Amino acid sequence: MGDKDLLSGYLATAVDAAKQAGEVIRNGFYQTKRVEHKGLVDLVTETDKACEDLIFNYLKKHYPEHKFIGEETTAAGGNSELTDEPTWIVDPLDGTTNFVHGFPFVCISIGLTIRKIPIVGVVYNPIMNELFTGILGQGAHLNGNPIKVSSQSELVKSLLATEAGTKRDKATLDETTNRINSLLFKVRSLRMSGSCALNLCGIACGRLDLFYETGFGGPWDVAGGAVIVKEAGGLVFDPSGKDFDITSQRVAASNPLLRDAFVEAMGQEE
Amino acid sequence: MGDKDLLSGYLATAVDAAKQAGEVIRNGFYQTKRVEHKGLVDLVTETDKACEDLIFNYLKKHYPEHKFIGEETTAAGGNSELTDEPTWIVDPLDGTTNFVHGFPFVCISIGLTIRKIPIVGVVYNPIMNELFTGILGQGAHLNGNPIKVSSQSELVKSLLATEAGTKRDKATLDETTNRINSLLFKVRSLRMSGSCALNLCGIACGRLDLFYETGFGGPWDVAGGAVIVKEAGGLVFDPSGKDFDITSQRVAASNPLLRDAFVEAMGQEE
Repeated sequence: MGDKDLLSGYLATAVDAAKQAGEVIRNGFYQTKRVEHKGLVDLVTETDKACEDLIFNYLKKHYPEHKFIGEETTAAGGNSELTDEPTWIVDPLDGTTNFVHGFPFVCISIGLTIRKIPIVGVVYNPIMNELFTGILGQGAHLNGNPIKVSSQSELVKSLLATEAGTKRDKATLDETTNRINSLLFKVRSLRMSGSCALNLCGIACGRLDLFYETGFGGPWDVAGGAVIVKEAGGLVFDPSGKDFDITSQRVAASNPLLRDAFVEAMGQEE
Repeated sequence: MGDKDLLSGYLATAVDAAKQAGEVIRNGFYQTKRVEHKGLVDLVTETDKACEDLIFNYLKKHYPEHKFIGEETTAAGGNSELTDEPTWIVDPLDGTTNFVHGFPFVCISIGLTIRKIPIVGVVYNPIMNELFTGILGQGAHLNGNPIKVSSQSELVKSLLATEAGTKRDKATLDETTNRINSLLFKVRSLRMSGSCALNLCGIACGRLDLFYETGFGGPWDVAGGAVIVKEAGGLVFDPSGKDFDITSQRVAASNPLLRDAFVEAMGQEE
């Protein structure tokens, strides 16, 4: 079996796992309005944990020799050190706040890294039924159809996405809104939809032109989306313009035409 | 025919009109990625105009004695003075920037006012296939199922929506981001999805807890959504806490439990 078949096999297995977890998320999503607050906290925790267990068990059955990093396992004190080994990096439920509120931007993100490079990516929104996939060297797809980044070349006509993050200390919030203020003078408009992985996929399919976020949870937010963006013809980089580091909790993405102007615009606030 | 039947008839006609326009928007939405920039501007203008003509012609055929106010007609210098007469207020394509970029939050908004009070509302997102409807005194629905606002009572757990607006002068932008900064200390998170009418519907179905926007286009952005929010048990008011004025280009909405704290929180930046 060639490398290409091997990678296609990895993708197919990851898609199977994501679809199964999607069923669990979909069931929970439509329950959130019917449970009381105490029950809601449990529902979120249980959905998150159930999806991660389901995905890891399924992948481990197929690839027992691989390594695994998950948001839930890491939060519980599990090992999250990224090595050169083939490693599955999983966010079982990206967009937890959206899930709680019933806002339809939620997804499962699964990425496979080899030598720390994202090779296979799956991001699945089970509410809107959108499945984004990518394999290094083999393109990116949305529900099986090829996707590509936007052809926008002017910052002033670009649609920017970012997130407010979860930190609420004054220094972080001031930095967040100062940068937004500075960027709003230069772009067409701003979207905040509450899922880092789906923002990356928005860049990949050209719905969004520019995205940056700093201080998100971990590599599970970006491991799946990074390869999808690259295979759609886009660039993933550090907001400073340096190389993307999957462990840094800092990410930016755009098409190649906008990258330099975007980095310059972001730098003017730093 | 009683008042109730009369209003149900108005709603059914508005839904028919929205569904027909939805077909036009859906066709355009999936074309935006395939046309060059010059063609794109034409596509947006033509879609907007075609949908307004289609909706107005359909409604006028049924209710020739009614008045009509539309975004496109007003932009072209048409009469937009709101009187006590039964008046259909139409935004044929709310979320134009989203339409251009292929971001799925676009909708048709149709509202009927009598004595300047919104009586019937239809907001239809043809991409996500979500039809929000409301009739004064007869409840609000999403795809035929009753909806209600969230039961959240704490600002700190609330999901807030607003928009960056279209004005790019320094005073407006600074005010926009200063208020966002101030509010982010007090709420759970922020969403910006690019459609005023869909934000109102987000409040109505409990996906969002808080929404405010100032400086939007006109009454067509709020006429449909206002009655849907009210009939879902929510409140529509001026961000200052004063009564909602449909002609003021200022709106806020929430459930009744959050209103006072929300108005106070917004006031602290003004």
